[in-house]
Amino acid sequence: MLSPRNAVRTLPSYHPPLAGRDGLRLDFNENTVGCSPRVLERLRQLGLEDLARYPERVPVEAIVADFLGIEAAELLLTNGVDEAIHLLCQTYLEAGDEALIAVPTYSMYRIYMMAAGAEITSVAASRDFRFPFEVLRNRITKRTRLIAIANPNNPTGTVASPEELLTIARSAPAAAVLVDEAYFEFCQQTLLTKFRELPNLFVARTLSKAYGMAGLRVGVLVGDPGQMRAVRRVSSPYNVNAVALACLPAALADQGYVQQYVKDVLEARTHLELALEASGISFWPSAANFVLARVGSTQAAAAFVEQMHRRRILVRDRSSDHGCEGCVRITLGPRDHSDRLLAALHETIEELGVTQGASRP
Amino acid sequence: MLSPRNAVRTLPSYHPPLAGRDGLRLDFNENTVGCSPRVLERLRQLGLEDLARYPERVPVEAIVADFLGIEAAELLLTNGVDEAIHLLCQTYLEAGDEALIAVPTYSMYRIYMMAAGAEITSVAASRDFRFPFEVLRNRITKRTRLIAIANPNNPTGTVASPEELLTIARSAPAAAVLVDEAYFEFCQQTLLTKFRELPNLFVARTLSKAYGMAGLRVGVLVGDPGQMRAVRRVSSPYNVNAVALACLPAALADQGYVQQYVKDVLEARTHLELALEASGISFWPSAANFVLARVGSTQAAAAFVEQMHRRRILVRDRSSDHGCEGCVRITLGPRDHSDRLLAALHETIEELGVTQGASRP
Repeated sequence: MLSPRNAVRTLPSYHPPLAGRDGLRLDFNENTVGCSPRVLERLRQLGLEDLARYPERVPVEAIVADFLGIEAAELLLTNGVDEAIHLLCQTYLEAGDEALIAVPTYSMYRIYMMAAGAEITSVAASRDFRFPFEVLRNRITKRTRLIAIANPNNPTGTVASPEELLTIARSAPAAAVLVDEAYFEFCQQTLLTKFRELPNLFVARTLSKAYGMAGLRVGVLVGDPGQMRAVRRVSSPYNVNAVALACLPAALADQGYVQQYVKDVLEARTHLELALEASGISFWPSAANFVLARVGSTQAAAAFVEQMHRRRILVRDRSSDHGCEGCVRITLGPRDHSDRLLAALHETIEELGVTQGASRP
Repeated sequence: MLSPRNAVRTLPSYHPPLAGRDGLRLDFNENTVGCSPRVLERLRQLGLEDLARYPERVPVEAIVADFLGIEAAELLLTNGVDEAIHLLCQTYLEAGDEALIAVPTYSMYRIYMMAAGAEITSVAASRDFRFPFEVLRNRITKRTRLIAIANPNNPTGTVASPEELLTIARSAPAAAVLVDEAYFEFCQQTLLTKFRELPNLFVARTLSKAYGMAGLRVGVLVGDPGQMRAVRRVSSPYNVNAVALACLPAALADQGYVQQYVKDVLEARTHLELALEASGISFWPSAANFVLARVGSTQAAAAFVEQMHRRRILVRDRSSDHGCEGCVRITLGPRDHSDRLLAALHETIEELGVTQGASRP
């Protein structure tokens, strides 16, 4: 009888609620408007042969490296950051090795670490969701081989300081330390080139958030060129599709679009935070394009999501994340989306009444 | 010091010669014309928001399942067949497990098996490149956990019979047996639904060859629903990009396009085989959209590829594959491409003179 590896047999399924996303998409931290029109223009120039050829990643990696001010050997384009996480797990984690995460955080770290057969230590953030620096550092052992940290963190929006992250990397020289900067554009804090001092440090970026290209699947993994050589060996030469590769330079070239979008989102975030405060709803100050708010009990969160959905606003119930009982995560968009969000929010609060007086975290 | 897993440290790099592919692309077994115009039409209808949303694989899997006459739970769409191979290795191969391949064959089987830390037994095909059925079967042990067979095989174009393949799967009930039918459309032999009798059997299909969508990255892995559940757990929910998912139904709907292309290629294959025969060049009768020919020594093969390239025809030197010293692999296309190929072939043969009188394999 064929039977999967033990690690796979016990692996949880990750089923994001993608079905029936009808309404304003404030549930997946995507760009709510879409990518730069220049990306679409480039896409529409593609011909039959462009789709028939195997994708060629290398020339586009040179363009991305140039944009980031690093060498092409220091980066790898991936099929979204998910693949970057998967590749790091496969490159560094032997069955039985220790891996470290701070929870709550992005689900796929745990899934790929488990798939590799690692023993995962989940360090819980305190009630304020601040990065649990001291506890995490104390849990590093000689067998720790991978540490994954989203910064800003998802779903909390909180940020660890560069010093904290560098100290973690310094304290675990035999571990790959991934700092996942998927929300970098909304926060601007980065460790992009710190691998030059700390060759065990990796930074991931994505085109799925501020750039509005989640559908095209492009992640960027940056690290020490010697380490990247190993990571690259595990990846397929055809991991990133030709449409994404063709459009990527157009997306990077239109920085004006991204900057305006980020500006709009930060304004909308302030408006949402003020509205939540005025309504007495707990939330965590966010450095990203979303806000995590506690609307009450787990039941209240489910009702909130449903009421918002009835008003054609999709937000994400995060109750099942560690420490997030009764929490919803709301993605921000530009002004018109923000206005629709706030209108629906006020109606929902009025209708449910459940959230009044919820204590500040 | 951070150091990759042992298996990764010794992993060979796979660097297909993708750079500077200027000329008629007869080197990667792609569709030489391109995909159906309906695919491009669909692609051009995509809007900004379609690119900004995370891709949703599930509804498209239902369409593909319908097309194949199976259930959606029996298939997984993958980021090309490469990802299907990778996922099978990760689902079933523990470090130290045995994996079996018949060489020469597609390079990525070995790479992903090695990355998983497996001990690989490579069974060499005989001089005629017939599928080494008896030898392979005799090498199955209790520790064999994965067997990968391309059928038709690449780069040889030879075919194993359904009976041989089913016997292999029956002889190794504790191993996942992958039959990679990337070239199915040119050959029509399939084990697609045999997983119903043999739950350790998997079949892979691709949109990269006959369908002309190599750039979009779509593979299809088919197997027992219980096994597929395990494989699916290891994959990212966002592994296939949104453009591919949007275009896939249009590609499947245009069967007339694929059938005409296959017909053209089979005609061209006959013309090439006749031309090779007339020139006294050894080749192996092929069931796929390419022909492997021995043009002489390893040096002769390199010179042949170069001379063809000077005539703007790209063909692939396979000298470094097991048993393929002095061999080139030539992809077929429809009539006009075939005419250009044959003209360049005759000139190259005349110029090099190296191939005259090479013995039949």
